[in-house]
Amino acid sequence: MADPPQDAQGFVLWFTGVSGAGKTTLANAVDSVLRRHRRTEILDGDEVRRYLSAGHGFSKADRDAHVRRIGFVAALLARNGIATIVAAISPYAEARGEARRLAEVDGTPFVEVGVTAALETLTLRDSKGLYRRALSGELPNFTGISDPYEPPTAADLTICTDDELIPISVEKIFAVLSGRGLLTGGIAGG
Amino acid sequence: MADPPQDAQGFVLWFTGVSGAGKTTLANAVDSVLRRHRRTEILDGDEVRRYLSAGHGFSKADRDAHVRRIGFVAALLARNGIATIVAAISPYAEARGEARRLAEVDGTPFVEVGVTAALETLTLRDSKGLYRRALSGELPNFTGISDPYEPPTAADLTICTDDELIPISVEKIFAVLSGRGLLTGGIAGG
Repeated sequence: MADPPQDAQGFVLWFTGVSGAGKTTLANAVDSVLRRHRRTEILDGDEVRRYLSAGHGFSKADRDAHVRRIGFVAALLARNGIATIVAAISPYAEARGEARRLAEVDGTPFVEVGVTAALETLTLRDSKGLYRRALSGELPNFTGISDPYEPPTAADLTICTDDELIPISVEKIFAVLSGRGLLTGGIAGG
Repeated sequence: MADPPQDAQGFVLWFTGVSGAGKTTLANAVDSVLRRHRRTEILDGDEVRRYLSAGHGFSKADRDAHVRRIGFVAALLARNGIATIVAAISPYAEARGEARRLAEVDGTPFVEVGVTAALETLTLRDSKGLYRRALSGELPNFTGISDPYEPPTAADLTICTDDELIPISVEKIFAVLSGRGLLTGGIAGG
């Protein structure tokens, strides 16, 4: 017989990238597999902003505070055995580094995935017309156009979503998680 | 043989009261028992403020935002089976009600404990001299003196810490948790 179920090792899987790069899509795709096997939570930038940073703006200080809050919550969840998936633009490397430290100080693994796409792709996906407006100068503080985005220099994985099929990206992410010893049981061989 | 361990039912145990009333002491006392049996987290007003509300002030809007953030995080933790203990002044009834709704909308039990003490007691305990300064008018926005505190009108329990010994208070809290069906195994009989 199998051993009684053990608490799984929590971790933080952090997707960073500009709006429309595919963070939420990948987060949901990974979550839909993981949640069959263990507890998961998704902290999505847009959704958590409503509770953690309502009324805040998009200055560097505001963005850093927002990322710090997400990092704090992610670390709390992950140290309780939850696979915590973050999808947040998180444009500044230092704030992402702080989120990593908040997890790692508890011994919680932190996996950073950069999500990128060509501007042409982003513009094509841009159903709300945000890139068009940002490129025309109408939208200030739009990350990647009128506001900085610092790409990760030492991400555990970078995924370019221009042409890659989602299942391929998901497989790459699971390979990284597996390599870090973060998959158990049924998903380990996947 | 006993059944394999099941995930415990998470809940939010929310202590509200003015500074020095005894919220942190009671939170730690309850936690020290609960954590022998299950996963727990303490969200203490002062500590979480550093990550969730750094740089914020003590206006009603700032205080409400802070309580909303704690409520959001508490609900996230509790719905993952964690006994989540909050110690926060949380002076406004409406914000506490919102925290309760955030938990209950997930089906997570929310237990509110009002912690009170006479002003004389608070002043005696006041090692930092905050009450003295607030009473002399030096400290604006000090809850209960120069800033409002709305006592809970329908708390699950109110504890007056003037004379009550901590183990007695803890026993009362466990009686409420037990009555709500939130204790299992070893603590259920305590």
